[in-house]
Amino acid sequence: MDADEFRELGHALIDWIAKYRETLATRPVMSRVVPGEVRTHLPKQPPARGGGANDLPGLLEQLVMPGITHWNHPSFFAYFPSNTSFASILGDLACAGLGVQGMSWQTSPAATEVEEVMMDWLRQMVGLGEGWTGVIQDTASTATLGALICARERASQFAQAGPGLQGDAPPLVVYASAQAHSSVEKATLLAGFGRAHLRSIVTDDNFAMRVDALRGAIADDITAGNHPCAIVATSGTTNTTAFDPIAAIADVAEEHKLWLHVDAAMAGTAMIVPDCRSLWAGIERADSLVFNPHKWMGAGFDLSAYYCRDPQHLIRVMGTNPTYLRTLQDGEVSNFRDWHIPLGRRFRALKLWFYILDVGVDAIRARLRRDIGNARWLAEQVAATPPWEVVAPVPLQTVCIRHVAPDLDESALAAHNLAIARRINDSGAAYLTPSIVDGKQIIRVSIGAETTERAHVAALWLLLQNVAAGTV
Amino acid sequence: MDADEFRELGHALIDWIAKYRETLATRPVMSRVVPGEVRTHLPKQPPARGGGANDLPGLLEQLVMPGITHWNHPSFFAYFPSNTSFASILGDLACAGLGVQGMSWQTSPAATEVEEVMMDWLRQMVGLGEGWTGVIQDTASTATLGALICARERASQFAQAGPGLQGDAPPLVVYASAQAHSSVEKATLLAGFGRAHLRSIVTDDNFAMRVDALRGAIADDITAGNHPCAIVATSGTTNTTAFDPIAAIADVAEEHKLWLHVDAAMAGTAMIVPDCRSLWAGIERADSLVFNPHKWMGAGFDLSAYYCRDPQHLIRVMGTNPTYLRTLQDGEVSNFRDWHIPLGRRFRALKLWFYILDVGVDAIRARLRRDIGNARWLAEQVAATPPWEVVAPVPLQTVCIRHVAPDLDESALAAHNLAIARRINDSGAAYLTPSIVDGKQIIRVSIGAETTERAHVAALWLLLQNVAAGTV
Repeated sequence: MDADEFRELGHALIDWIAKYRETLATRPVMSRVVPGEVRTHLPKQPPARGGGANDLPGLLEQLVMPGITHWNHPSFFAYFPSNTSFASILGDLACAGLGVQGMSWQTSPAATEVEEVMMDWLRQMVGLGEGWTGVIQDTASTATLGALICARERASQFAQAGPGLQGDAPPLVVYASAQAHSSVEKATLLAGFGRAHLRSIVTDDNFAMRVDALRGAIADDITAGNHPCAIVATSGTTNTTAFDPIAAIADVAEEHKLWLHVDAAMAGTAMIVPDCRSLWAGIERADSLVFNPHKWMGAGFDLSAYYCRDPQHLIRVMGTNPTYLRTLQDGEVSNFRDWHIPLGRRFRALKLWFYILDVGVDAIRARLRRDIGNARWLAEQVAATPPWEVVAPVPLQTVCIRHVAPDLDESALAAHNLAIARRINDSGAAYLTPSIVDGKQIIRVSIGAETTERAHVAALWLLLQNVAAGTV
Repeated sequence: MDADEFRELGHALIDWIAKYRETLATRPVMSRVVPGEVRTHLPKQPPARGGGANDLPGLLEQLVMPGITHWNHPSFFAYFPSNTSFASILGDLACAGLGVQGMSWQTSPAATEVEEVMMDWLRQMVGLGEGWTGVIQDTASTATLGALICARERASQFAQAGPGLQGDAPPLVVYASAQAHSSVEKATLLAGFGRAHLRSIVTDDNFAMRVDALRGAIADDITAGNHPCAIVATSGTTNTTAFDPIAAIADVAEEHKLWLHVDAAMAGTAMIVPDCRSLWAGIERADSLVFNPHKWMGAGFDLSAYYCRDPQHLIRVMGTNPTYLRTLQDGEVSNFRDWHIPLGRRFRALKLWFYILDVGVDAIRARLRRDIGNARWLAEQVAATPPWEVVAPVPLQTVCIRHVAPDLDESALAAHNLAIARRINDSGAAYLTPSIVDGKQIIRVSIGAETTERAHVAALWLLLQNVAAGTV
């Protein structure tokens, strides 16, 4: 492909994407292919000769689109919002077109410095103080693993330089609520702590971590001769967007010198709305936090923002300095390769930059308020329509509901609600996530696609009622 | 930005990228900005109002381009090739435009199944047997960390489900050559083994791991009551593209039941050329291997291919199964979220697919042969021109040289060669990496940008001679 062919194919692909986004609402949200169906239509061997990329829209329509579940669809209510705005798409395009490696400052200074500025813009947008420094990572899972490794090293006086976790020091222990995301357990295990040293702290009626239980668990560990190391608090749990009480947890962390990491993957974006900031009051006292502009905000996946109060600590744990990576500017610049697990880095800040420039902070804030309003509206409708019930508080944009059909025991109720969710997903009209909260099978409605208006939420509510009533 | 504005801005950006690539050779390879210079021109606060993304080419030219080091430049000889082909750029564009999350099969079946097929195409291209299964990761650093964690868990009988590394089992030990990439040490430390349990095995005159020394280190560890766990062998070291003897190392691994991970980050691509495959003879006996199509091949960063022989092992170590991630198809499909550290996944297979379709395997093979030929040519020129010398064998596309100017001691020689490299980098005419090999300060010439022809290598050779002679 030469530059002229690239121009032609690129224009065609841009047009195809524009058309795709314009017609998104007419497509079934969840893909309807069966396992293996996409694979079947692809050749088993790679082509010896080229020339097969002359009709990219055709390839995508024919082979890919049947297997796409549409995350930017206005009736996407599953998992979490994953907005990839138009401006963000162009940021990714520019990133690929430049094709640079931002591992060190020198290997493309703009990649480092635009990222520094964007992380500072974002810091201001969510109302964090100047003491925080940010770096882009791929996902909250990776960032949380990094935070727990940092915590491990601080608590062990940097045992990585010696025996690692394989010395005879008392075992380090991690604390997180029973509602913490699965990535917290995964990170604890991958970092080598072992499940035996992860305490799952019970939650209160709002699904927030109980600080008395946290204190009790720490006391028990101290008595047992263990070494409390880190607390992972969640601002906005996956299931119900519950908020652990950061300030009270920070008291405990300070008292026992524990690392406090805050997982605000989805809900961090909410802090662009000043009214929401009371939900994570105390955040300034955490050691690290992660949130994902690639979720509710609008910078396409992957763009996870990791903030910490002491980047030198990060560099001490993650840094390497082989001769082939040394540059003249080391010491006076940030070499972001030393701030996380991977060495190589894309120029991801471009998509955040283009997006913020295009939309502006006021409009982002207005859209978030719209989504929060839509969630409250849905919760009110559900609460006012027995035997439907809202099973958890709705601080943000996630509504957990279930249909308590009469004369069904818990097991039958679970099957009934799971069947409602699956029927809706199979219909193509909307896509949502069944889950289990407090032992109950529930239907989880996560609102926040860029294109989701009140009318889409109202249509979902009607559909839920009709499916439950068996009329569709 | 609405769909029509996206069309207009998208076309303009495509045209700008095409023009950028067409004029690449006229730009200085290494950015000339000073630390802080790019940052200075960006506003300190994010804009409240939008509308600032109406001239993306203008923004890029004015604010970004001065801070770009051009990795796709024909005179880029630094680090490693990092080719981002035109077709790959369009693959990234399609990925962003679709904006899907491929964490589970159901969340976009095409993302999983196209990846399965591409990983199988790639397996065939580099001549690996059918027993290998591949998954896309971001970087070799992350993949190697994953491999070492898998090794750790297999050797410890999955201690992550219990005390992790914090039990009283004998310490697990990792072995790698003294020429292994810095990411191997980093992964060993992050995985919790501790530097005290990483053995740096001496290398032979070709900078390849000495198997007798490996055997000796393992015997010493067994005597000391330690538990040998994993060997990381390198196919193509960063400094000199040295190849550890995989077959002999595999014998040792089998004998002692060690995990054998092969880091072929840069050189794996070479195996598309069948003549090169003898360099990693024995590869079929490894447990895992990683190589980066985002380096020498042409699929833009980030696209690292991790292959293993037993994906169930990967899933056992990396898998999670919270209720909110369960889907109807679990058990009959691959949920790639369980194959690595991150949960979320982009649709990265698209760029590999578009690239291979566009170019075809024959043309990739021809280009790799061209680069290997250019490296041999340069090595011959250098060897024939004393006091220049080639300091390491040249099995592939990296040539390590130095100018042994008369009457200089080692320290002055080091300064002299570092000065040559810096002078060339500062000139903008070419970009290469100074490094230290065998205690000697050398100049490392890594050949392999898509656009690099013999003429560019010849121009570099002339420049090197002129700079050394002080005539430029």
